[in-house]
Amino acid sequence: MNDLNKQMNQWIAYIEEKLEVFMPKQEQFPPVIFEAMAYSLFAGGKRLRPMMLLAACEAVGGEKEEGLPFACAMEMIHTYSLIHDDLPAMDNDDYRRGRLTNHKVFGEDMAILAGDGLLHNAMEIMADACYHNPSKKTTGAMQAIAHGAGIHGMLIGQVVDVFYEGKPLEANILEFIHINKTAAMIRAALKAGAILGGATDTVAESFALAGEKIGVAFQILDDILDVTSTMEELGKPIHSDERNEKTTYVTLYGIEKSREIACKLSDEAISIWNELGEGCIFLKDLTEYLTKRTY
Amino acid sequence: MNDLNKQMNQWIAYIEEKLEVFMPKQEQFPPVIFEAMAYSLFAGGKRLRPMMLLAACEAVGGEKEEGLPFACAMEMIHTYSLIHDDLPAMDNDDYRRGRLTNHKVFGEDMAILAGDGLLHNAMEIMADACYHNPSKKTTGAMQAIAHGAGIHGMLIGQVVDVFYEGKPLEANILEFIHINKTAAMIRAALKAGAILGGATDTVAESFALAGEKIGVAFQILDDILDVTSTMEELGKPIHSDERNEKTTYVTLYGIEKSREIACKLSDEAISIWNELGEGCIFLKDLTEYLTKRTY
Repeated sequence: MNDLNKQMNQWIAYIEEKLEVFMPKQEQFPPVIFEAMAYSLFAGGKRLRPMMLLAACEAVGGEKEEGLPFACAMEMIHTYSLIHDDLPAMDNDDYRRGRLTNHKVFGEDMAILAGDGLLHNAMEIMADACYHNPSKKTTGAMQAIAHGAGIHGMLIGQVVDVFYEGKPLEANILEFIHINKTAAMIRAALKAGAILGGATDTVAESFALAGEKIGVAFQILDDILDVTSTMEELGKPIHSDERNEKTTYVTLYGIEKSREIACKLSDEAISIWNELGEGCIFLKDLTEYLTKRTY
Repeated sequence: MNDLNKQMNQWIAYIEEKLEVFMPKQEQFPPVIFEAMAYSLFAGGKRLRPMMLLAACEAVGGEKEEGLPFACAMEMIHTYSLIHDDLPAMDNDDYRRGRLTNHKVFGEDMAILAGDGLLHNAMEIMADACYHNPSKKTTGAMQAIAHGAGIHGMLIGQVVDVFYEGKPLEANILEFIHINKTAAMIRAALKAGAILGGATDTVAESFALAGEKIGVAFQILDDILDVTSTMEELGKPIHSDERNEKTTYVTLYGIEKSREIACKLSDEAISIWNELGEGCIFLKDLTEYLTKRTY
């Protein structure tokens, strides 16, 4: 296992331990909602968004503990979005990460509520952190996350994705979906982490910009891997885009050109990390890993 | 029209004007989500939660403008909860306030996303307000609202309501549902308003306590009116609880005893307003109106 993998695994272990702490405790009534929320929150995953938030906080000289509530909130928001995306009325997926989707286990009503519950919980955790220490740092981080997740961020990406389902997409619409559905939350994670770590507005904007580039490159690579890799390598069904007649970067531009676009975005993000200096080495390695996997 | 009605109508007009301001603007892509969000947000309604928040803020000497973002956020959270409650997987209602429910007009996928969008938008508005002026007041109001809406508030009330659907309820479970599903947000509105207006912790807790009593009394009265009033008087189908074989205060205790319980809670809330003094006259009149209607 190389150094990056070791560091990622350490982050993942740390984040999963803290996610437990920030999950609501079951009280007197039906445990089902808490089970449903935990089922999807603890279903594996690379914990990229909280990892990036915490790494960005450290990269500018902050303490990771300051970022924790916001990092955990981000993962809860990400998980809520997956639960709702999988619903029968949306993508109607039966499996995610090799396990039954939330609504297949807990029913559609509880899955909707489990998603809602995770979003509520994220809001509660961040509100608590802001109240505990009301400052431009805490409220700025919450603002970055709220905007990244919201109606001009992740949510509108999902709306447009659902809206154009089964229809061919123009390149600008596909780019809009990737920028919002995937990249907005990665952008928010890096920006929020930098703000919490005490970065100036200009530096925080550099983190945000790197995040947007990483997010889009990551999604393009995902489109490519859907075509080029085997199910064993990817750990999920391949050729799903083709089966769903989905417009992707690959169907629009072909594999080679798509790889070029992703590489260019990745290199631009790496330039930003280089300019920002030593503190960003982990983020630079992570960027390489996320946007240039060739398996 | 009596004085209270006039004042309520003035509040409603003011709140509806401001809700427009705080709604996200449509940008380049499909207007459907913005239409779906607006469809339910501007479907009438008494705007009780934002009205109470703003009135509480003024009652302790605050300016209503300080409460506005939080008041509008509360109404958006309330509306999101109605959209999701009406979904086929939940209560499966076709009509609300005499109009088709959100999913009957925009489809189930867009209704889920419109609900999500309103909750996201509430979070964005409150985060912006807190960032603009990070203080114990703003973050405390956001915290009160986040907790009132969340997994130990409104949401758990809905979960328990869904969980026990079609089963007979014990009195303590019915009380739990009313306290959480209905009263938690009224409690939060009054507490958040008082905090924003500059109340001490003790006074803010008095507002919260009054809110809980009003919320439960209001819900019990709703159960009673479902049995005693005509459809013309109520403006919605009556006897719906009986048709749905729903356990209510009326099925558990009968009409007379239910009215006694509601009256006692209402009187306790009114005592709190009396103790808090002159500033709370509107809230006192509103409490009478909401918990003692006899038609």
